[in-house]
Amino acid sequence: MAEERLDPWGTVEVKDYDRLRRVFGIRPFAEVIPKIREAGLPPSLHMRRGIIFGHRDFDKVIVEGYMKGEKIAIITGFMPSGRFHFGHKLTADQLIYMQRVFGAKVFIALADAEAYAVRRLPRREIIRLGIEEYVANLIALGLDPDKTDFYFQTNRGTPYYRLIQLFSGKVTAAEMEAIYGDLTPSKVVASLTQAADILHPELDEYGGYKRVVVPVGADQDPHIRLTRDLCERLRGVVHLERPAATYHKLIRGLDGAKMSSSRPDYTIFLTDPPDVAVRKFMRALTGGRATAEEQRRLGGEPEKCTVYDLYLYHLVPDDNELARIYRDCRSGTMLCGECKRMGAERLKAFLEEHQARLEEAREIARSVVEPPSF
Amino acid sequence: MAEERLDPWGTVEVKDYDRLRRVFGIRPFAEVIPKIREAGLPPSLHMRRGIIFGHRDFDKVIVEGYMKGEKIAIITGFMPSGRFHFGHKLTADQLIYMQRVFGAKVFIALADAEAYAVRRLPRREIIRLGIEEYVANLIALGLDPDKTDFYFQTNRGTPYYRLIQLFSGKVTAAEMEAIYGDLTPSKVVASLTQAADILHPELDEYGGYKRVVVPVGADQDPHIRLTRDLCERLRGVVHLERPAATYHKLIRGLDGAKMSSSRPDYTIFLTDPPDVAVRKFMRALTGGRATAEEQRRLGGEPEKCTVYDLYLYHLVPDDNELARIYRDCRSGTMLCGECKRMGAERLKAFLEEHQARLEEAREIARSVVEPPSF
Repeated sequence: MAEERLDPWGTVEVKDYDRLRRVFGIRPFAEVIPKIREAGLPPSLHMRRGIIFGHRDFDKVIVEGYMKGEKIAIITGFMPSGRFHFGHKLTADQLIYMQRVFGAKVFIALADAEAYAVRRLPRREIIRLGIEEYVANLIALGLDPDKTDFYFQTNRGTPYYRLIQLFSGKVTAAEMEAIYGDLTPSKVVASLTQAADILHPELDEYGGYKRVVVPVGADQDPHIRLTRDLCERLRGVVHLERPAATYHKLIRGLDGAKMSSSRPDYTIFLTDPPDVAVRKFMRALTGGRATAEEQRRLGGEPEKCTVYDLYLYHLVPDDNELARIYRDCRSGTMLCGECKRMGAERLKAFLEEHQARLEEAREIARSVVEPPSF
Repeated sequence: MAEERLDPWGTVEVKDYDRLRRVFGIRPFAEVIPKIREAGLPPSLHMRRGIIFGHRDFDKVIVEGYMKGEKIAIITGFMPSGRFHFGHKLTADQLIYMQRVFGAKVFIALADAEAYAVRRLPRREIIRLGIEEYVANLIALGLDPDKTDFYFQTNRGTPYYRLIQLFSGKVTAAEMEAIYGDLTPSKVVASLTQAADILHPELDEYGGYKRVVVPVGADQDPHIRLTRDLCERLRGVVHLERPAATYHKLIRGLDGAKMSSSRPDYTIFLTDPPDVAVRKFMRALTGGRATAEEQRRLGGEPEKCTVYDLYLYHLVPDDNELARIYRDCRSGTMLCGECKRMGAERLKAFLEEHQARLEEAREIARSVVEPPSF
């Protein structure tokens, strides 16, 4: 354990992830990294740092597919009910990496019906958020809109909905309850729709067969397993191969609990005015000790530090530099005040640059997504 | 009660229907008939005979709409998992009447996903049955394909599916369980899809707003009520007005129990070879007495007779002739043997004529319905 805790990339306890691998058959991502390099490709920052910690069939479906010159797709969904934050950016970075490095076509589902059902926002506001918050921020972060298919789930065309209808006959209530708890009509439809999101890029009707990977948090695995099973269950009806999945750790909010749009004090949004973001950041929970004296003596605990999380996931792309910050914290050389001031500068610079690109990205976003007619 | 039982149109006990009217607010159809005549239109055979016994808003939505020159639609669905029989013909006759007399546009939903989920038939067979059994028989019966929109539910286009997704957020699990019992994914999707069937003819995307009526059996009323409620619940999102409904009695099988494709010995299919149909018919349960002597003395009981059902619903269109058969049975003048021989002649003639039209109708059917691509 002591060694594991001294890993600069290992800020989050890994025992739950080990269990996921053991019990459910998620494989460690580390085993795939040499294969990615053998294919002549660089692993991503999140892969190198173990933030993407697990996978299903990433080697067989994606790396081998790439070597054979087959078409690859990556698909994810966003619920357009709040603002785009650093938790979303983790997924965005994976999409951009797959697009640039693996040449993957990117599919972005905007879960407008679910937002309407769950969050009770007006349809118009949901559609506005989908385009102006999610699509625009993704483009500003570097997603190439020419190689991305952005869509609202209520606006996707008949073969996609046919999948939903056929899936509905191939899942039992018990299976769905095991994943989602008590069934409601909106949960049933939303979960079958998610399965269609994942699998429809394989259909002829959406640009022809592609090998698909889905980046998810570990909590999404039951859904991935069900979706993979559905491919078998529709054998003979429609050609669907089981998608690959990658599993990433989740960045914490600034108080150490969940990062979420519904907790704006502990969540940094990519559209926060830089001074607002910096104020939140300066109050963030760190791994500092009770006193400066104690911290100089014992060193800080980056594993407990939400500021370090931001460095690890987003703000310090250079591995050597991150290792230096980790060492200086652990050794007590750099205290939290100094560290936060450095982080605040980086955060401010990142947001200023990002927001400078955002206006043009919004223009593009409006032209690349078709809003539903109602 | 005695008087009620002497009604030649009243072969089925009406007390359940009375309860439906009292408890659930279904109104007696008899009140609408004068309004139909005032509009200068003849009521249909099934209206005249009380087979269509109840309605919701048929006067306000349909008769008044007709008077104002507004567009009218009638919509129904068939599950293409078996063969087309005299139970289906009851609905078909209503569609044809509304098309010819009210100038209604007819929408026919073919519930292929539900058939796949519930009956476990191969998709190809379901699609074949939809076209060759259901659409073809409807056309052979006289439905004008130029004024009918036949579609498979898995092949209906985006705005229709958008309704399903939006509905999913506006129905609770408890509401649905009250109607359908324990929820399963396929029941949830099938029932939201049915609501979309009923309401989508009102959308701009499907030929512009129309006033809608749905012909159903009384057992379908909970679904009609839910669908009508959904219109209110989506107010401000999409313009949907509450559809009208008509409620018909259900013709019994030849043993007096349910008529159903799954009970072929007691169900006459419109594609049965006439000799096969006649054999089933000759064995049908009648309202005859234990002996001929007793029957001459007491008279028969047409209310209990499945042969009389076929006359009332289908084979004797002339009201005076039907009244004469009724009297001759009740008085003991005509016994079951004679009556059945007459009925068998009519049945044979009907099937021969119908089947002579069927081959051409099948050709047309193949050209007017687009089969799903998988």
